[in-house]
This record gives sequence, C-alpha cells and structure tokens, in this order.
Amino acid sequence: MTVRAYAVEQAGGPVQPLEYEPEPLGPLEVDVAVTHCGVCQTDIGLVDDVYGVSRYPVVAGHEAVGVVEAMGSAVDGTRLAVGQRVGVGAVAGACFSCEWCLTGRQFLCPRKDDTVLRGDRGGFATRVRASDWRYVQPLPDTLASEHAAPLMCAGITVFSAISRNGVRPTDRVAVVGVGGLGHLAIQFLAKWGCHVTAISSTAAKADDARRFGAHEFIVAEEGLERAAGSFDFILSTVSADLPWDAYLAALRPQGTLSVVGVPHGSFSFHPLSLLPGEKRLVGGVVGSAEENRQMLDFAARHGIRPVVETFPVARIGEALDHVRHGRARYRAVLEF
Amino acid sequence: MTVRAYAVEQAGGPVQPLEYEPEPLGPLEVDVAVTHCGVCQTDIGLVDDVYGVSRYPVVAGHEAVGVVEAMGSAVDGTRLAVGQRVGVGAVAGACFSCEWCLTGRQFLCPRKDDTVLRGDRGGFATRVRASDWRYVQPLPDTLASEHAAPLMCAGITVFSAISRNGVRPTDRVAVVGVGGLGHLAIQFLAKWGCHVTAISSTAAKADDARRFGAHEFIVAEEGLERAAGSFDFILSTVSADLPWDAYLAALRPQGTLSVVGVPHGSFSFHPLSLLPGEKRLVGGVVGSAEENRQMLDFAARHGIRPVVETFPVARIGEALDHVRHGRARYRAVLEF
Repeated sequence: MTVRAYAVEQAGGPVQPLEYEPEPLGPLEVDVAVTHCGVCQTDIGLVDDVYGVSRYPVVAGHEAVGVVEAMGSAVDGTRLAVGQRVGVGAVAGACFSCEWCLTGRQFLCPRKDDTVLRGDRGGFATRVRASDWRYVQPLPDTLASEHAAPLMCAGITVFSAISRNGVRPTDRVAVVGVGGLGHLAIQFLAKWGCHVTAISSTAAKADDARRFGAHEFIVAEEGLERAAGSFDFILSTVSADLPWDAYLAALRPQGTLSVVGVPHGSFSFHPLSLLPGEKRLVGGVVGSAEENRQMLDFAARHGIRPVVETFPVARIGEALDHVRHGRARYRAVLEF
Repeated sequence: MTVRAYAVEQAGGPVQPLEYEPEPLGPLEVDVAVTHCGVCQTDIGLVDDVYGVSRYPVVAGHEAVGVVEAMGSAVDGTRLAVGQRVGVGAVAGACFSCEWCLTGRQFLCPRKDDTVLRGDRGGFATRVRASDWRYVQPLPDTLASEHAAPLMCAGITVFSAISRNGVRPTDRVAVVGVGGLGHLAIQFLAKWGCHVTAISSTAAKADDARRFGAHEFIVAEEGLERAAGSFDFILSTVSADLPWDAYLAALRPQGTLSVVGVPHGSFSFHPLSLLPGEKRLVGGVVGSAEENRQMLDFAARHGIRPVVETFPVARIGEALDHVRHGRARYRAVLEF
C-alpha cells in the first residue's frame, strides 16, 4: 500500500507530499500506521540541513505513535500484535547481536537504524517502518497518543540521562532549560524523588517550571553563583554555549553535568573546575529498548505528560515553523 | 622533642633547616618518625609557589614513611602501635563525621587535613604528625620503605582513579605519560588485568613502558589517530594541554577519560567529541583511608614497585632540583 509522506526537497524548501511504495516487509520488520508524530528540534535541523548530513528528499519525524499494521514473519507474536498501539522513536532498530546490543546498549550499535537518517522514511508519513520489532514500544493504555509521541524522543533522551547516570531520589538536581526536553526532565526528576531546581534564561518560565514540579527556580546566570556547590546532578537540555565553569561550580563534589543538548561551540572550562571535586562531564544519547519500556511505564505510573500543541498534518508547514522559531509550548504534535 | 624540618623561606629560596617544638599530642593524633619521604612534583609547586597558595616557611613532603613514635589517647591500639612502620600521604586526617567521610569519601571532606597545606608541618622533617590515626597506613612487610613512600601519593592517585571509575580487567586502557605517576599507573593497570597501552611524547620511554607491563606503546600524537575508538579508559597523568578531541576520539563508546594531572590551560573540545558516544571526562583526587589500604595491599600482592632514586636528606636541595627539572627516573625519595 502506498505511503503518503511529507517531504522537503531541499534546505529551506516547502513541505510537499511524497508518495512511495514500500519494499516487501522483512522478517523482523514492523509497519506502523501513524496517527501522531511529534516535531523535534532535530527534525528542523534535518529539514534545514543544519548538521550537513541530510539526504533529500527528507521525510523527518521520529516521535511516531500509531497502530501496528503488519509484522514480519520472525516477530514474536506474543509480544506484539497487529492492531496494537505503539511508538517508534529516533531508533527504529539495531543489530541485537553486537557487543553493545548484547550488553543492553543498543543505542551504541554501529548498525542501529536511525529513523530520520534514512532520508525519506521518517515518521511524517501515513506509515513508518521499524527495522526491528524490539524497538517498537507498546504503549500503556493510560497514555494518550498525542502525549506518548514526544516521549519517544524528548522523553527518553532525558530519562536515559537520569537513569544511566545513577541519579538517586535523595539527590539535589537542576535542569537547564524549560523547553521541550526540560519540561519533561523536571517532571521525571520530581517523580524520581529528587529536589529539583529549574534554571532558565528567562524569569517568565518560573510558574510553568513550578507547575512541572520544580521546587526552586533560578534565572541563569545571575542566580547560578549563589547556587555554587548545590547540585549532585545537572541536566543541560539547551543548545546554548553555557558558562561551563559556572555550571561545574554549581555541582557538589563528585557531581555530574550531563549534556543532552548539543552546544553550538566547543566546551571550554578550567581544569580546576572539574578535577579537585572529582566532577564528571558526560554526554547522553537515546535509550535502549528496555529503557524505552521503563520510561513509558514510569511516565504512565506517575502521570508525566508533555504539554503539547497539536496540528492536523495538513498544517505541517505551520507546525515546523512553530518549532523552528522556538514557539512551541512545549511540544508540537502532528495528527494524521 | 624538637622536630628538625627542611624549609624554604620564600619562592625560589634555598632549603634550610627549621626547628620547631610540636604542640601537645591530641587524642586522635599520631606522630611518625620519618625514615623516607618521596618528592612529588606538587612539592616543587608548593616550594616555588606555583599555585599561589604557599604559606612560607614551607615544609613540603607528603609521601612520608616511618615509624609510629607516639599516639594520642583515643587511637585504637588494636589497629596501630608505637614502633609500627606506616605511611602518611597527602591527607593526614579528616573529620570522619561529615556526609563525605561517613560515605567513605574522606578525600572530599571540607575539613580534611592536607599534609603540605599546613605550611611548615610537611614530611620533609624528622617527624610528621597525622591529625587522625585512620589516615596513618600500616605498611605490608614485603614493601620496602623507599618503595612505599611514592605509593602514598603517586600510587594512590592513579589507583583511586582506576578503582573509582569502575575499570574492569577486561578493559583496554591507556596511560598518558610514562613518569612518576604513569609508570605506576601502567603497573597497576597491567596487574588489574587490563590490556595496557602507554602513550608518551617520546619514543625513548618505550622499553621502560613495556617493562612496567604495557602491552603496546604509542608515540603521541602521531599514533593516536590510528587508535581512534580503542580504549575503555584513558588515564592522563601529565600536565600538558593535550589535544582533547583526539584523546576523546581514542575512547570507545561510554569510555572514560580520567585526568589526574592538572593541565596548565583550559580544557577545550567539541561537544560532538563527547556527546554521541556518551563519553565521560572526569577529574580525580586522592584516595580514602580504605582505598589507601587496598592500594598498598594490591601493590604488595602483585609486586608493584616504583622505580626510585634515593637521596640522603642532606642532599635535599639536589633532590628537589632533580624533580624540578623533570629528571627523576621515576621517583625521588629522601632518606633520613
């Protein structure tokens, strides 16, 4: 059956319909009829070729939610069924046989299948195909599809940074940026049991941050100095070039600064900002299959929900512009 | 009894005798009659006021080995005895009551007692006083005193970085710098079970590195490019400003770059060197009381020994110059 996708033919070009006939379904593959797809800042980056890796035509979209339409012959029918409601995120498959996959770290698999790096096979389409069913996530019933969509990338990105860096419920933590990722990070960390401080460049986000569960709010960087030595864990969700020395100073000894937003420029900071307190600077990438399951389960149990603005897919160009100009409060979701 | 110490009165000044009368012994304190004391690069830094924290007169020396001469009234006599051979390193005490001490991390104690930051109370003296007996380390019999001395700082610095960063015997690791710290790091990691690559700026260190247990040797930075994606753990023991992007590139995914030598300038590297592979950059500081014990036990069991050059204390000025000019092969030790 023909897939009707929404493509951009060149950087800066308009969104246009693109139809393609899918290949025959492989044994481990799953087709998902898309009902919702979140719009992430990295979708804009791909559409606009910000990273220099875009292969046009680009069909972006990697926060897809929908219904299983067809499954390959080797898919475990006791774990996934046609008609089931599922999510497909930034990773649509992995080899499940290399050292990384076999140690639970499929996100490091050299052969992992990046949903949006396949060119014209992203989730802004009536159907998205996962190359391995184990990256197709069944959704808890209590999680509405428009809420589940942003969890598939924004949610798992912050959740895996929290989970993999050993954050403990007794920790004092900070989230830098109250946006698409940040507003979810605040919710996850508050439900994780932590004392949460939200840090934003604008005081206008204070009320929202508290509503998401932040116990304190700091306007960076004026409040940062007073917070010196305060945090066991800081999660930066922004792409700004932060004053890294000040953020490292805000960590307690052996604290971790986890950076999931990619800064534009180089990191630069003084060795004594990091060394004497045995502090850590770490990167973060998307989750494993099991981390995706844990994240959805945790979000469902604790009522963690992205704040979304929905757009019918016919208004996709408008939705992309909305995200492109940083106006989403807090996450845009396309409805098919 | 009068303590005869070796002091420097001002930056760049000569080493001169300094005598002082010790205060009465406190209940937790221990006096150690020094028989050996290693000379560390940071002793030179203090004598020369490189860090801007020196309080003159400076009596440096924080790799002291000797014999317990007197113990305070509250010292546990079942764990330490007058006449016992012991070591006192960079930390001579901690509060043993704050959150860091009570969680096994005395090295982060805000009230920890830095042997050489007490001004004129360092280990270049006939006697050194520990402010808490729990930082006075009994020495295994098989460890000669001139070998034990450098382990008290150089040894524990590299050992705690290995132990606290979760290095596993199955890991491929690299040591940057084959010097006072590096030649011990290579030995510890080889006996830890790892595949060890030594990285030096000069090919002249290759034979020594292999003798210390390195399986491979790389002349940085020409060999570094070929080593891209090779190491689970890199331990930098040098104070040079390394090409950090190249060293991060040499890590495998989720690998750790542990920096125990303090670079002169700022860290600077591209975010994509760190983030996509979820790599870690961490500082490292000296060990806890228990880590000191484990380190000495491990060194004794595996025959790990620093290569030392001994100087009678009468030639202390010569010994300091030797270290100051980077000529020690591999560690200078004063004999009293």
